[in-house]
Amino acid sequence: MERQNEPVGGSTQRDGPEERGSPPFSSCEHTDSPEQEEAMMRRSDDYLPVPGEEKNLARDFGSKPGNNESIPMKALYEDGHLGPYFSDEQCRVDYVLTYSIQKPGGVRRRSSKFSDTNFLRRLRRSMSMRSSRAPLQPKEDPEIAAQDQRTDYHEDDKRFKREEFEKNLIEMGLKLEKDEGSKIPGVGFLKIHAPWDILCREAEFMKLKMPTKKVYEVKQGSNLVEKTRQFIHKVTGPLHPKVNAARPQNVKSLSHPFSREKQHLFDLSDRDKFFDSKTRSSIVYEVLKRTRCTKAKYSMGITSLLSSGVYTAAYPLHDGDIEGLNAELNDRKLLYEQWASYSVFYKYQPIGLIRKYFGEKVGLYFAWIGVYTQMLIPAAIVGVIVFLYGCATVDDNIPSMEICDARNNITMCPLCDSACSYWKLVTACGTARASHLFDNPATVFFSIFMALWAILFMEHWKRRQMRLNYVWDLTGFGEEEEDHNRADYELKVMEKTMKMDQSAPKEEKVKLTCTDRMPAYMATVAMMIFMISVTFAIVFGVILYRISIKAALHVSSYPAARSNIRATVKTTAAIINLIVIIILDEIYAKIARKLTEMEVPKTDKSFEERLIFKLFVLKFVNAFTPIVYLAFFRGRLVGRPGNYLYVVGSYRMEECAHAGCLMELCIQLCITMLGKQLIQNNLFEIGIPKLKKLLRKRKSEVTSMPEEDLKTLQRFEKDYFMGPFVGINPEYMEMIIQFGMVTLFVASFPLAPLFALLNNIIEIRLDAKKFVMELRRPLAAKAKDIGIWYNLLRGLSKVAVIVNAFVIAFTSDFIPRLVYQYTYSPDGTMHGFINHTLSYFNVSDFQNGTAPVAPMHLGYKVEICRYKDYREPPWSSTPYELSKEFWAILAVRLAFVIIFQNMVMLMSDFVDWLIPDIPKDISLQIHKEKILMVEVFMKEEQGKRLAALDNHNKDNCPSPSSIHQSPPQPRSRPVIHAKAS
Amino acid sequence: MERQNEPVGGSTQRDGPEERGSPPFSSCEHTDSPEQEEAMMRRSDDYLPVPGEEKNLARDFGSKPGNNESIPMKALYEDGHLGPYFSDEQCRVDYVLTYSIQKPGGVRRRSSKFSDTNFLRRLRRSMSMRSSRAPLQPKEDPEIAAQDQRTDYHEDDKRFKREEFEKNLIEMGLKLEKDEGSKIPGVGFLKIHAPWDILCREAEFMKLKMPTKKVYEVKQGSNLVEKTRQFIHKVTGPLHPKVNAARPQNVKSLSHPFSREKQHLFDLSDRDKFFDSKTRSSIVYEVLKRTRCTKAKYSMGITSLLSSGVYTAAYPLHDGDIEGLNAELNDRKLLYEQWASYSVFYKYQPIGLIRKYFGEKVGLYFAWIGVYTQMLIPAAIVGVIVFLYGCATVDDNIPSMEICDARNNITMCPLCDSACSYWKLVTACGTARASHLFDNPATVFFSIFMALWAILFMEHWKRRQMRLNYVWDLTGFGEEEEDHNRADYELKVMEKTMKMDQSAPKEEKVKLTCTDRMPAYMATVAMMIFMISVTFAIVFGVILYRISIKAALHVSSYPAARSNIRATVKTTAAIINLIVIIILDEIYAKIARKLTEMEVPKTDKSFEERLIFKLFVLKFVNAFTPIVYLAFFRGRLVGRPGNYLYVVGSYRMEECAHAGCLMELCIQLCITMLGKQLIQNNLFEIGIPKLKKLLRKRKSEVTSMPEEDLKTLQRFEKDYFMGPFVGINPEYMEMIIQFGMVTLFVASFPLAPLFALLNNIIEIRLDAKKFVMELRRPLAAKAKDIGIWYNLLRGLSKVAVIVNAFVIAFTSDFIPRLVYQYTYSPDGTMHGFINHTLSYFNVSDFQNGTAPVAPMHLGYKVEICRYKDYREPPWSSTPYELSKEFWAILAVRLAFVIIFQNMVMLMSDFVDWLIPDIPKDISLQIHKEKILMVEVFMKEEQGKRLAALDNHNKDNCPSPSSIHQSPPQPRSRPVIHAKAS
Repeated sequence: MERQNEPVGGSTQRDGPEERGSPPFSSCEHTDSPEQEEAMMRRSDDYLPVPGEEKNLARDFGSKPGNNESIPMKALYEDGHLGPYFSDEQCRVDYVLTYSIQKPGGVRRRSSKFSDTNFLRRLRRSMSMRSSRAPLQPKEDPEIAAQDQRTDYHEDDKRFKREEFEKNLIEMGLKLEKDEGSKIPGVGFLKIHAPWDILCREAEFMKLKMPTKKVYEVKQGSNLVEKTRQFIHKVTGPLHPKVNAARPQNVKSLSHPFSREKQHLFDLSDRDKFFDSKTRSSIVYEVLKRTRCTKAKYSMGITSLLSSGVYTAAYPLHDGDIEGLNAELNDRKLLYEQWASYSVFYKYQPIGLIRKYFGEKVGLYFAWIGVYTQMLIPAAIVGVIVFLYGCATVDDNIPSMEICDARNNITMCPLCDSACSYWKLVTACGTARASHLFDNPATVFFSIFMALWAILFMEHWKRRQMRLNYVWDLTGFGEEEEDHNRADYELKVMEKTMKMDQSAPKEEKVKLTCTDRMPAYMATVAMMIFMISVTFAIVFGVILYRISIKAALHVSSYPAARSNIRATVKTTAAIINLIVIIILDEIYAKIARKLTEMEVPKTDKSFEERLIFKLFVLKFVNAFTPIVYLAFFRGRLVGRPGNYLYVVGSYRMEECAHAGCLMELCIQLCITMLGKQLIQNNLFEIGIPKLKKLLRKRKSEVTSMPEEDLKTLQRFEKDYFMGPFVGINPEYMEMIIQFGMVTLFVASFPLAPLFALLNNIIEIRLDAKKFVMELRRPLAAKAKDIGIWYNLLRGLSKVAVIVNAFVIAFTSDFIPRLVYQYTYSPDGTMHGFINHTLSYFNVSDFQNGTAPVAPMHLGYKVEICRYKDYREPPWSSTPYELSKEFWAILAVRLAFVIIFQNMVMLMSDFVDWLIPDIPKDISLQIHKEKILMVEVFMKEEQGKRLAALDNHNKDNCPSPSSIHQSPPQPRSRPVIHAKAS
Repeated sequence: MERQNEPVGGSTQRDGPEERGSPPFSSCEHTDSPEQEEAMMRRSDDYLPVPGEEKNLARDFGSKPGNNESIPMKALYEDGHLGPYFSDEQCRVDYVLTYSIQKPGGVRRRSSKFSDTNFLRRLRRSMSMRSSRAPLQPKEDPEIAAQDQRTDYHEDDKRFKREEFEKNLIEMGLKLEKDEGSKIPGVGFLKIHAPWDILCREAEFMKLKMPTKKVYEVKQGSNLVEKTRQFIHKVTGPLHPKVNAARPQNVKSLSHPFSREKQHLFDLSDRDKFFDSKTRSSIVYEVLKRTRCTKAKYSMGITSLLSSGVYTAAYPLHDGDIEGLNAELNDRKLLYEQWASYSVFYKYQPIGLIRKYFGEKVGLYFAWIGVYTQMLIPAAIVGVIVFLYGCATVDDNIPSMEICDARNNITMCPLCDSACSYWKLVTACGTARASHLFDNPATVFFSIFMALWAILFMEHWKRRQMRLNYVWDLTGFGEEEEDHNRADYELKVMEKTMKMDQSAPKEEKVKLTCTDRMPAYMATVAMMIFMISVTFAIVFGVILYRISIKAALHVSSYPAARSNIRATVKTTAAIINLIVIIILDEIYAKIARKLTEMEVPKTDKSFEERLIFKLFVLKFVNAFTPIVYLAFFRGRLVGRPGNYLYVVGSYRMEECAHAGCLMELCIQLCITMLGKQLIQNNLFEIGIPKLKKLLRKRKSEVTSMPEEDLKTLQRFEKDYFMGPFVGINPEYMEMIIQFGMVTLFVASFPLAPLFALLNNIIEIRLDAKKFVMELRRPLAAKAKDIGIWYNLLRGLSKVAVIVNAFVIAFTSDFIPRLVYQYTYSPDGTMHGFINHTLSYFNVSDFQNGTAPVAPMHLGYKVEICRYKDYREPPWSSTPYELSKEFWAILAVRLAFVIIFQNMVMLMSDFVDWLIPDIPKDISLQIHKEKILMVEVFMKEEQGKRLAALDNHNKDNCPSPSSIHQSPPQPRSRPVIHAKAS
């Protein structure tokens, strides 16, 4: 931040002579002799592709020409060992940066001397080329016009920046090795290794908690609890992945933030293993982020270099090969065998190993989806039971029996104008019976159950998260990381500064204000509204399709066609909806990303949040609009016989089948869930990544390589062909939408949890395979929780309560049945309910032209037909007005919503309050650890005092590892080793 | 924890010869010569009251008899300097423990040699004496029976424990000074001082964040923002307390956890000021908590010693005198002048100073009440405006005009059986007009406003809290402190262990299980239910009182009495309710504490939470039962003419006055709020503490001291007379109940925020005075937030939404008026509304004996009278049944509740989401500080590397304070000073 305010001239100083002597790509700490260093230097310089004038540029690096010396190195490569090491096989590669190298024979640069003004000009040019707008001040650069020259300069500029950056990295203490002669033409690799000192220093800055030597036994409460635990563990033995059998389960190391002054606390006997590969790579990334390419005034480290194309990719390496000859046992292989395989679908996930390999963020995702899937098991079981209860009681259901009883002989009013005729209620028998499967008292119980289930799931997850935080030593870790500005933001700020330079040159700190972002915000709002309207329009279109097809089929009057009318229309409509949802999802995702980029958020976190918010709204509207229409609007806006509601000219709004719209809602939900998951899983998660990998290989012309060459690719080359890791937010999003399906309309579709469960079992292994095999290793991002997703889950489960309340109260017939049974029924049973729900209509009251053209269709003359509504009969003083029953039932319905909502909310809050967020054993252990840590320090303190005394007496240093247990000597004041002070 | 498992015999070893040589109460670091130490030793031993056999006990302390040597010390005391220092005037007293000393001439002890078995026996005895049950194994101690001897032993045992504890404290490095000859007879003082080394060590263990030398400028965004800020600061200048004018506002020190290895980071030039008195005392308390009296096997440090009466009190000292001759400027005086005074009521509070003096927990309370009071200002203004709107529109209100219009001539049914007669609606004119003040459309707006206000308040507080956390350097501080077991719990566990010893001696860790606590839980549940029932019964009693008085007054038929009926009954009933509430509050508080003690919670935190929960439920039920009855039940369960509802024999349930019960609700709220606050403030917060202080002084016979003696009391003696600090939870509780009053029924009483505001302005200064002048200084407890109170506030504001929704929908006439105006009204106005709300009753349908005895009271024969309800008229087919209007209005009311609740909840969540919890400038600064810290370390790193190089070259140590800015030398590997390793 402060460096931004330095004058541009400062960069000259940095090039000053005092840095002449600094070594270039230094060797690993194991090979520290000057001769070896010299050799390394030569080696790494061999691959500078354009000698000659290049030297001028890279003079600080002491480059030496000599291409032929590269041959012994190549021999080394083919030596068989392909582990993640520098070519000296001793320095571990902790991070890889790639960049595109100029093809030999490019246009020669004209100006070989890079003055500062020149640099600045080129910098601006490269910046302006990235920005989609017109170059900022083209008139300033009249001497450069030809396009090819520009590209050339551009490449030049990039190399220049790279060299600057690499020099700074070396200054920070990292060891680098360049490799531009790999088997992949056009791609240069910069391998980075962090020596021990740097690892220690950065670990101290990052306050990484590392395990100390002090171990303690984790006791799990009393004997009985412990025995039960062991028994459960034994019973579920086959379900546990075989990954950490060697480690004793009931012993844990105390952890303490790493500090070089407290080195004696840690077990440093094996320095290579002390920091694992994940930690090493994140330490290197921390340095990369902090190190700035100082000449590019507004650059902020690796992120902006990546986004400006100076480097093309940055990734840590995978641990090793999964299969093949020289694949010894490594974490990746273990993960592949014990986790990323469909054959272990029934097992727990090795969360600890996942976290060790991929970092906390990915670990948390899989832990979360694991908990979710586990919690779905009871929900699925109860859902199936509820469904089976519906099946079992379908024959005892009095209302559907009455509908199916032909003796009742109820004549219904026609379902469409003129073309349709009167019909007998008994023909709706099938639908009525089917509806009962999803509309019975058990459904009410099930939706209360699912509301509590959602809360329990959330609570369970909170506790699991806390437990993981404890096991992963994240308890003291604050969340405010990753506040580095995005490169795009920096660029935008720079543009603004340049503009302002002319008007107000004294303004020191420039930032993007609301006014700068206003156009983007306006565009976002407009586009969001537009996209939502498109979704609405499409849903409305499908409704019109349904209405018109129905009418057309009615007109055709073929009995065969007619009998299939309902099924055909419902299914085609649902499938159209599904296809539209999937296509729009993809389009909207693209647009949402573009919009977010236009807004130029300041940090990655902000970018992510804005994108997630947009995507969530869009995907949600997309997936749920047809469902919401079916649940709450269909059949409600139809008007009444003689006074129907018409849309788009003469289309009468759809009515529901007699037994409510619940049935159709159910079909829609079923098709959406199944279809979405099948298509998205197969097409988008398996197909497209495979295609992309193929394309990437073809692009870099490696496919033309012989097969054995492919096998001998170095680790960093193999990883280069893998897909870049794009974050786990898409996976979360998919799951959240599914969670919405499971909870929101669960009252209408009790099988939803089962479908979700089956999908997730596959989904976990699918994602695992993708992460282990298809993608580059992600940078180990730390995270204490799942962030915004938890809030979305919470929000969804809140909305679910109210939606379910409305589904039960208004979509299902639960309330009218209840009211009938307890107030209107003459004998307290459901007999006569159907008759009670049907109002009377006098056919003479039909409006002109809407009366059926075939009134005698049923074989007799109809004078009074019936329709489903609570209205006054034709003979009352206020015919066809809403009746007292209507208002009474409406009041009960609304009262039910209030009671249901508040009761479930109260229960949720109660459960939330009842279950502590931190499991008791964990909080006890955290406390115990704290006490143990103080004890360790106190002992050390005493040892120190003694040591000081010894020192004073004998004038020699005691061995530090032996902490004396002898009694304290209070007379001697403790001497504090005020080192460096 | 681990020490508990040590064998009892271990204590003998500790008394072994190796500790003979340790000095007793050592002197301060400033007086370190052996001669001075010797003098100190003598001095402190002088006050051992019983020489002779006592020596045997205190042999480890090297005590020497010689009472007459105390005279020079006493001279020192009267020397005039009464600051918080040891008698050598150099060691600052950081903490004081007091204990009761035996009066001279007590019974001589028989056994002077303390074997281990003897000790254990005595320990058990003392334990069993504390417990209310019978002594555990009295048969084991047959030789001791006489009661006086037992007390004697008890005293002896206490002294024994004290000596053990004090020896351990000295071992931990603290300096002690005993003072048993102070002006207060019977009380011994143990003054504790923490030397610099101990402060450093403990600060390191506690990871205290201390300001470093590195300061940076805090920039407040762009110029315009900064200017606005400065302008506002200037305008509100007179409102700021004059406490920290010297400190520059825009500079802040970087903070870093204190560590002795990083001493050079901190400004240690003035060691006396580096740790302020609050920090020093909390460090000492930390040591006191950790140090165990090892001989008392189950004791856990100072808390259990306090609760077992070994020490009678423990407190840090106040900074100095407030007034008087030798009161130089100190923080306490500053607080007194700038904060704890009614004359500065309009000023902001000096929160920083409060925190500096009292610690974070108290600071947060005052910050919270400050924010609350500030937020009440707009609420009070809007409330007054709403009230004034009601006043202004009372003459334009058509319904009350219709009631007051005598031409309407509506005859109402009698209000009580037989005694009352028919009455004219026009007599209810006054009530109707008054009701309008609280029942108008503005009220609906106001309750939405207040729901959002509550959310805004919460959000504002979260941000303020975050800001304070940042300013107070608590950002990295975890909350899991204070998990020390309570002494009562330890005692209980010990009892259990002893019981189990006989049956299962091998069980290692004993804890209290649910079965142990079951009786207490049962008692708690039973008592809670009983207490709640008592409250309900009393409220019901008041209702009966109202009904019977009303009936009696009606019977008396004096016109004068009758006209005052309403006012008398309402007021007396409300006052009875108020008195009952206040009395029950006090009783319930006592019972709740007892119940919680019976439950034996494990930690103080758990104790506090359980107590708060109980108190909250009880106080809440207590305060709100009469109000809830008035709002939702009164006038609803009356039945209808001819079919009234009777309770307790022949009492007809109360009806509301014509214009709803809102008016009475309002009176009740008003009296409760005003009365509760006035009485509680005056009586309980001012009167009782004063009384207690007087009693304490009288008890210790100091009142008989001459006046000048009182003035020359030492600081620790003065503080001894002050009341002990009992936590701030009672203050919070009071505020939470008030918050409930302000938000819950705000729809019926818009003036509530104004009343609360006026009360709080006084309350703040009252509490301030109490803390500064009346109470001992509290231990500075750290806290990041206000804990459980925030959750209670959140819960209350959630409940407030639904309560207000119901008040508007059901208690007020808002919905019926709305429905009438938009559906039933013939001309779209409110004309005819009153007629619409009144149903018809045929007087011939009166039940036997309930018809009025004086039917001709109005001067004409009444055939049809009217009553307020929506029922069918006598001439309909279903007479007196609920009408269609009733159901329609009910449906609208319920719909309103759903819409209101969900709309307000949605808005709340939106506001919650919209306002970031962490203010932007704070998050920026936290980020900036992090970067600056890394920069500081990097510079240091470079300096170290250079120093190592220098060291290597010249073999001498460089001055540590000069961190070199010279360029780094990457060739030389940094040498880590692996101190003590």
